[in-house]
This record gives sequence, C-alpha cells and structure tokens, in this order.
Amino acid sequence: MSTVQNARGTRDLLPAQMHARLHVIGIFRDIFRRYGFEPLETPAFERIETLMGKYGDEGEKLIFRILERGEGGREGKADLALRYDLTVPLARVVAQHTTLPMPFKRYQIQPVWRADKPQHGRFREFYQCDVDVVGVSSRVADAECVALVSDALSALGFADYQIKVNHRKLLSAIVAAAGAADREGEVLVAIDKLDKIGVDGVSKELSERGFAAEVLTKLWEILAAPGDLAAVAAAVGDGADAPAAELRELFAHASALGAKNYVFDATLARGLGYYTGAVFETVITGGGVGSVSGGGRYDGLVGMFSKRDVPAVGVSLGLERLLVVMEERGMLPTGGTATQVLVTRFSAELDGASLAAAAALRAAGVAVETWAGAPGKLGNQFKLADGRGIPYAVVIGPDEAAAGLVNLKNLKTGEQVKLPVAEVAAKLG
Amino acid sequence: MSTVQNARGTRDLLPAQMHARLHVIGIFRDIFRRYGFEPLETPAFERIETLMGKYGDEGEKLIFRILERGEGGREGKADLALRYDLTVPLARVVAQHTTLPMPFKRYQIQPVWRADKPQHGRFREFYQCDVDVVGVSSRVADAECVALVSDALSALGFADYQIKVNHRKLLSAIVAAAGAADREGEVLVAIDKLDKIGVDGVSKELSERGFAAEVLTKLWEILAAPGDLAAVAAAVGDGADAPAAELRELFAHASALGAKNYVFDATLARGLGYYTGAVFETVITGGGVGSVSGGGRYDGLVGMFSKRDVPAVGVSLGLERLLVVMEERGMLPTGGTATQVLVTRFSAELDGASLAAAAALRAAGVAVETWAGAPGKLGNQFKLADGRGIPYAVVIGPDEAAAGLVNLKNLKTGEQVKLPVAEVAAKLG
Repeated sequence: MSTVQNARGTRDLLPAQMHARLHVIGIFRDIFRRYGFEPLETPAFERIETLMGKYGDEGEKLIFRILERGEGGREGKADLALRYDLTVPLARVVAQHTTLPMPFKRYQIQPVWRADKPQHGRFREFYQCDVDVVGVSSRVADAECVALVSDALSALGFADYQIKVNHRKLLSAIVAAAGAADREGEVLVAIDKLDKIGVDGVSKELSERGFAAEVLTKLWEILAAPGDLAAVAAAVGDGADAPAAELRELFAHASALGAKNYVFDATLARGLGYYTGAVFETVITGGGVGSVSGGGRYDGLVGMFSKRDVPAVGVSLGLERLLVVMEERGMLPTGGTATQVLVTRFSAELDGASLAAAAALRAAGVAVETWAGAPGKLGNQFKLADGRGIPYAVVIGPDEAAAGLVNLKNLKTGEQVKLPVAEVAAKLG
Repeated sequence: MSTVQNARGTRDLLPAQMHARLHVIGIFRDIFRRYGFEPLETPAFERIETLMGKYGDEGEKLIFRILERGEGGREGKADLALRYDLTVPLARVVAQHTTLPMPFKRYQIQPVWRADKPQHGRFREFYQCDVDVVGVSSRVADAECVALVSDALSALGFADYQIKVNHRKLLSAIVAAAGAADREGEVLVAIDKLDKIGVDGVSKELSERGFAAEVLTKLWEILAAPGDLAAVAAAVGDGADAPAAELRELFAHASALGAKNYVFDATLARGLGYYTGAVFETVITGGGVGSVSGGGRYDGLVGMFSKRDVPAVGVSLGLERLLVVMEERGMLPTGGTATQVLVTRFSAELDGASLAAAAALRAAGVAVETWAGAPGKLGNQFKLADGRGIPYAVVIGPDEAAAGLVNLKNLKTGEQVKLPVAEVAAKLG
C-alpha cells in the first residue's frame, strides 16, 4: 500500500478542480489573445546549466535535478533539471530562436516545480501564467500589461481588485533623496513590508540596522502621501523627473486602454532585483491570499543568454491563488460534472433506440452519459445521475420507442415530458 | 553559447505550433465532454516505486529519475520519476481516491517523458490524450470508445480513417485452434507484423521459430477472410463463440452510436500484453504515420495498486501523429498568428484615440496588436503587421479623430474604408 500515494507536495487535479481550472485558463487565453499575445510552451526540463546560477543560492536548492540515463550516463550525475519558472525558459527561447519576429509577445501557461518544504496551500508543482512583451521599451507595452490584468480580473468576475503601480527608478530616487543610496537594497526590503508591519515597524527595522534618524525623517516626509505621484516627485526633487514622467505616460495609456482600479503606490517595492522600470502588483481586497498578479519591466534579464540588451515587460497572473479566492467566494462554475444528461437503458431490446438518442444529442453538442450497467432498474440509473449532479435523464421505453419520442426527466424537480429527441437536443445543446 | 539550447530530444512549441495543438486539443475536449468524460491531471512526477516494475526492463530504462533533494536527500539517490504514460497514474488515482464515483470516466491530456534515443520525429517529451472508462465491463463502454474515436477524427476533418477492432480472446482462440496455444505470445507478435511483412513474411518468421507447417496451414485457413467475423469464428469453432458474441454486441452498439469506418480485423494483435477483451487501432489511409489511435479493454491493469479487479476500457488518441498528418494535408488553421488587427499609432498626440480604439475592439472580442514602437512612420507599422500575417490595420489620423471614425485597411488588398470603431468591432468580433 505504501506506493499508492502521489509524491509529497503534489496533488491530483480531479474533475471538479479541473473544471474550475479550465474555466479560468479559458478566460485567460481569451484575454491574452485580445491583447495580441501568442501561446508558447517550453519543455518541462532544461539542460541543467541553463537553470543553474539564475535563481540565487536559495532558489537553486529548490531545483529538481534529473539523472543522466542511457549509455554513457554516469551514476548519480544530473544533466537536466525541471523548469523552476517561465522566465528563464523565455530568455533561452529568445536567445535560441533568433528569427522570432520582434516584438515577441507570448503567453505561457504551464506548471513549474520547486522543491519547497510542502505545507498547507504550497505545492511543489504549480501553474504559472505569464505574459511578456519582449523587444520593445515603449510605455504602451507597460500600460497594456496593466490593462490586461484589469481585463482578466474583471472577466473572472472580480470588482474589488487594486493594481498598484510604481517605478524602480523612482524608488531609487526616493532612497537617494533620503540619503541612503549606498544601502538601497536594505531600505527597499524594509519598505516592501510596509503593508504588513506599518510605518512604525519599518522605522524600527531600519533603526536597528543603523540608519540615522534623519534618513527616516526624510523617507517618511517623501512618502507622506504615497499615492500622490506629484507630491512624491516634488518631495524627491530632480531625481524623480524621469521615472515620474514615465509613470504619467503609463497612466495616460492605461486610462485610454480602459484599465480599471490601478493606482500609483510609491511604497510598492517588489522583491525581485531584476526590475528596471515600472513595477505592478495586484491584490484582491479582503482576498486574504497576498498578491494575485505581479510584474514589471526587466530590461536586463531576457538578454542573459544572448549577450545583448533585450527590453522586456511582463506580468504573471496567480492562477492558484485566484482559484482559492474564487472557490471561497463561489465564483466558479458549480456542479462537479459537465455532463448534462444521462441516457438510461430500459432493456437490452431497446438499447439501439437509447444509444441512437445519445448519438443524436451528442451530435448537437450535448454532454451525454450513457448507463453502462445492466439495462433496466431505472431507479438505480436515476440515482447514479442524481449523485453525480447530472440534471436530466432520458428514458426510452416501449411506448416512447413506438411513438418516436423520448421521455426527458428533470432529476431535480421530477418533472417529465415526452419530446422528439431533436427538441431535447435544441433545449440542451 | 553552449547552454543556449533546449535539452536533447525536446522542442519548444512556438506560436504557430501551439495554435495547431490548441485547435486539436479543443476539438478533443469537446468530443470527450459529449461522451461524458471528465478532465483529470496528475503530477508530472510520481514516487519512483509507483513507476518501477510496470513497464518491463526496456521501458524502465527510459524512465527519467529525479534526485532526492533538501535535508536528508542522499547524494545520487533518486526518489521520484517523471510520468512515463497516463495509465499507471490513472491506476494510482483510482487506488488512492477511494471515493471516486464509479464508473469513473476521465480524459487526460498531458505530456509524458521517455528517454528514447532522440531521432527525427521522436521526442523525449510528448503529449498523450487518453480516455478511459473505469469500473464497468459493459460492451456499451467499449462501443463508446470506438464511436468517440470516430467522432473525434471526423471533427478534425478526416474522412479516410479506419478503426480496426478485434478481441484478445478471439486471438487466443485462433492460436489455440491452430495448435499453438502454448506459444501464443510468439504467434501474436508475428501476426502483429502482417501489415508490414505480409503472409509470406509472417510464415517465414514462424517457420524459422520452429512452428510446424500444419500450424501455419491452419492459421492461414482461419485468417483466409480476416475481415469476416462469421467466417473466422466458424473456422475457429467453439472457442470463438464467447469473444465473437461480445464483438457482435460491440458492433451493434457502435452502429447505434453512429460510429463510422470501423471494421473487424482478426489480424489486429496490438503489442501490449495487458489487453483482456476488445482491442482497437486506427489508421489514416495513406497517412504514413502508423496508428493514430489505439486502445482496448484491460481489466487487470487499473487494479494493480488496489489489489482488486477493476474493469476498464480506454483509447488513446495520437495527438503528435495526427498533427503531422494534418500539417501535411493543410488541415490546420492557417496563419502564424491569431491576431486580427494592428492598431497603428499615428502620432503621440493621437495615442489616446488609438488606444481607446484598441480597447473598444478588444472589448468586442477582437484580437488586437498595438504598435509599440515610436508613433508615426505608418509604412513600418503596416510592414510589421503584414510580415506577421495580421490581416487588417486600423489608422486614426487627425481627420479620422475629428470625425470620430477609424480607417480600416485590408493589408492584403490595400482597400481602405472609414468607419465608426463599433462597425469594425462588429465586422471582426
């Protein structure tokens, strides 16, 4: 019995979960298509040297390594590794397929694998949904990422999301104006926690790290109205001019593109060091799952393999977290099954008529289950359908067969009507 | 530069390939749904003991093994392995999730990994598309597998497919009637090659293996009309009664279900030893890729972990081979892009109008690319769209903006019309 278990930290996606997931992915694909993004898939594993050295020491420990095999495979030696994210594979694709037309706008919806310590709600295999525009530095591309997140969350049925936008270079200018340019990383890590630990918490952390009181005073002076771009830029001075102008352009484009619920937030830092321009992060108000989307401009990363500058901006939608919130809020299609009707089998003699009715319904696009036990005992057949949440049953007994009709039973109400099968098809198809 | 390469035997699925693949998978999912199959996904890797001992020595060599990691992970030791097929994971799911309602009808479309020697057209990562009915032994389920393959291939646009059907127990009866019951496996392996090497080739192989001339004489007497179930059954005698009756029932159900292009073929052996009842195999006439679908009843396999009998019947659709034939025959959606229109940017001043037009088109479901280079120089913008195969461009210059119209240019014909954006949306949406 010990082997009858999925691997630790993984999960099977059973039909009810798959229906939810396919519903969300279908909406994502449709929105991505509307924005001109094209689908891409890369292999589950890469050559090990492609992934190593890209994620820092902590990330590298979490990479699943695959043993060499076949003739010449050395015992215990790994030459391949499972995909850790979708960004390094994108950089590899851009470097390798040199004839890809630019801008290359791709979306990618695939699992990634990380050997994190398994814990509630954190898995070693999970989907990422990334969209990236590679090869242009225009603010239009940045704004389209914001508008796309807005459209995607609206299409899923969310109204209470907030897309926070900031600029990496504005953050640098803020830290410099506060007199801490030489320790920018530490200040950004602290500011990133503002949501969680508040001004007092951040101040305490920075004081303990030895930042002078006047640095803190200046910092909070600049961030007094962190949602007011003009006020922040004025408090920073000249250093803020260029990033503030970029942000104003981004916001003008986002507005024209119909993006909703985006705000400037000077305290949005985003942990990842590779961002070089605008950064975005989205939360569902009261969602309780942290950010459900994040991204930004990262002009240095996609060129890592090609040894050339490749501007890029992208955003990732947090499929797994969105599914959690949608489940809690009842925003997912209900019912564990997509099947609409059970075609019962009255008797072996009437199997031909029943199966022909199933075929006619299927040809009209109806999702049909046929009873696959012994014919007869309709009560058992209705019970199976009802237990599965299948809403209708079709019965063809001798009377119906003689009249060329079928009996359509609503399993919730018990109501029954005799109809030609074509009418059932029209009703359910 | 040495790392800028995908792993050997794998491939990137670039947008044109992904469009083809998503097209076929979309049709598959729709047909599977009509037959009452529900989606399932299992993790990419399983505990190594789940996979070992299931595929024979040759298969086992091809399994990708993953190294232990983290604290306690022993250097060089593998504890996980990549999925080799979708059948063993299905058996594991059925054993583990004991409350799954039966019959469990699932489909699964996921990649599998095999460390085969890479060669033209054979990859180490490829998709399998499996449908299986677990928990019922009815011939209705067998017949639905045949009808589903027929519907799926018809929906893809194929007319010239042939679904061969045989029965494992009929094959045993044929071999027994020929007097070779004690060496059934060898005879079936030889018969399986009949398509390729003909009667003379099979006879030669069996003679060389020491089968007596009278065995061969009887074998070819039984198989004189291999498509005629009555003739084959009569030549075999009593031993054929039970499987022939099952096949007749299967064919009657398949006919009622509207299945097309299925034939009885007494020489269809299917290599896999685990089949216990009906077997199916489908070829595209002149497709040149071998079988594009195969399956059958395998009542002993799904219960491998649960130590109980679990009847099952299923069929696998050969996505990769079907894509090859469809590509050769021009049956796939043309055009490398799903994008329908490029919204150009005439000048920075008119960006607001252009981006608002893009938003209006997207809201109507149109796939829109916006120009992300510097505004102006429309010729370059048209060139990009044309190079990508985007059929239309929208231009909003000062005149159009003043009139509240957009200029819709057909990039193939050069034809231009001025319209309200809502009319463009209605035309393309």
